[in-house]
Amino acid sequence: MTPPTNTSQTGISHLSVFSSDYHQLAEKKDTIAIEEPLEIQLIGAKDILPVPISITMRTPGQDENLALGFLFTEGILHDSQEVEKVSFPDENMICVHLVEGKEYDLQKTDRNFYATSSCGVCGKASIDAIHTQSLFDIHQDQARWNPTVLRQLPEILRENQSLFSQTGGIHAAGLFTLEGEQLILREDVGRHNALDKVIGEGFSKGLLPFRESILMLSGRASFELVQKAAMAGIPVIAALGAPSSLAVSLAKEKGITLIGFLKESSFNIYSGHERLSF
Amino acid sequence: MTPPTNTSQTGISHLSVFSSDYHQLAEKKDTIAIEEPLEIQLIGAKDILPVPISITMRTPGQDENLALGFLFTEGILHDSQEVEKVSFPDENMICVHLVEGKEYDLQKTDRNFYATSSCGVCGKASIDAIHTQSLFDIHQDQARWNPTVLRQLPEILRENQSLFSQTGGIHAAGLFTLEGEQLILREDVGRHNALDKVIGEGFSKGLLPFRESILMLSGRASFELVQKAAMAGIPVIAALGAPSSLAVSLAKEKGITLIGFLKESSFNIYSGHERLSF
Repeated sequence: MTPPTNTSQTGISHLSVFSSDYHQLAEKKDTIAIEEPLEIQLIGAKDILPVPISITMRTPGQDENLALGFLFTEGILHDSQEVEKVSFPDENMICVHLVEGKEYDLQKTDRNFYATSSCGVCGKASIDAIHTQSLFDIHQDQARWNPTVLRQLPEILRENQSLFSQTGGIHAAGLFTLEGEQLILREDVGRHNALDKVIGEGFSKGLLPFRESILMLSGRASFELVQKAAMAGIPVIAALGAPSSLAVSLAKEKGITLIGFLKESSFNIYSGHERLSF
Repeated sequence: MTPPTNTSQTGISHLSVFSSDYHQLAEKKDTIAIEEPLEIQLIGAKDILPVPISITMRTPGQDENLALGFLFTEGILHDSQEVEKVSFPDENMICVHLVEGKEYDLQKTDRNFYATSSCGVCGKASIDAIHTQSLFDIHQDQARWNPTVLRQLPEILRENQSLFSQTGGIHAAGLFTLEGEQLILREDVGRHNALDKVIGEGFSKGLLPFRESILMLSGRASFELVQKAAMAGIPVIAALGAPSSLAVSLAKEKGITLIGFLKESSFNIYSGHERLSF
């Protein structure tokens, strides 16, 4: 067996593995998803040293959008005008430089709090801290739409998941219009990272809030993912898998239509069914 | 739609949802997995205030094992003798009280570091910090075994996943002997929590290291899960899904046999094939 060859640019790694039919071993070529740490640091215009914010285990690629999406969904950044530039001290580290005038917020920050929020919900300094405050009110986003567009989304997502088709082991988050047109699709070993990459792209390009859009998730819907969607103003979430209890509660509170177990023949609606128009 | 009724004791919640066949809506009863935050706090014998260590989004049940497994796999606790008692200030908080003499380690601790480690790898203060140091050397665990026992494990896992069968949305970690006998099985919305619950039970009962055992995972194998298994001395990991690049590297470094894509007809071996005996 040869050690894996990382091709970080593509997010995949080629290696030799053994396969077995329970009778014997056979060596074969295989392709797996790359997982590497990314440390996100913030630096204010007057700061000498960067402030370490989080380390996330991610699939390399779209690191800038990942970092910006993370900082936005955590409520640390609010607008792309707050960012002077980003730099990459090395391949597993990204430094987000703030414009002058953002220092005050940073100094007010309880660094322990921010240092602990890498997965969106985990490690926060108190249980109240798991809730972030969105800039957007989704309740006002009352566009009605026909759910037949949902039927095609899982296939579109799968067809466009280039890393999944090669590795069989990577999550995706896709943003679609209410007519089912794909806008942004990102893949990552971490489902929260895939969503941060989508939202970070919207943040960079000034596309937020993502009104009248559907977020399609390749897996289950957790509290954390619903919260990130709420921060980006996304009114509809459709997941291939099941939602958790807290995901349902948060979707109801935020006015998000939450769909789970999306299949060719049927789907479940856990909140916000009033937006569906048959 | 009625609000969810939480039945924390069982880890599931019953609610009314709508299902749709793309033509109309029908109300139905559904069961979903509970996701709630658990704050883990440490308190030394001479400390006045508890130290918040982490908040994890978990399925209630086995909280003591979850907290102890987390603290052990993070390298904060080494032995159950270090624990005086645990207390529950409320249902989403657990306090682990240390015996006298453990204070010194706690004071040496960089609290920022520990406060950031809730997912095992995320949010740590520097990238070096994602590696923990195991008490056990798995390279010495050279028992050879016949892989035909693997064939039955996915079915045993599924049959015994009571929460999954009701909700379709929960991960499991199961510990088996090399003969395929089930030892411990735990479920959680977070796959890292399911594994912490298994390892925490071993920690509490003095069963660590888990030599000559197979860890069966219901999903993919990430760096974090391989690291937790390494901390518990588990020599074999078999996952239903794909491993990541860093999971494969760490398994090789630690001497762990890592199996992925475990199916009825075949499986892949990413490291440690020398333990298999046909």
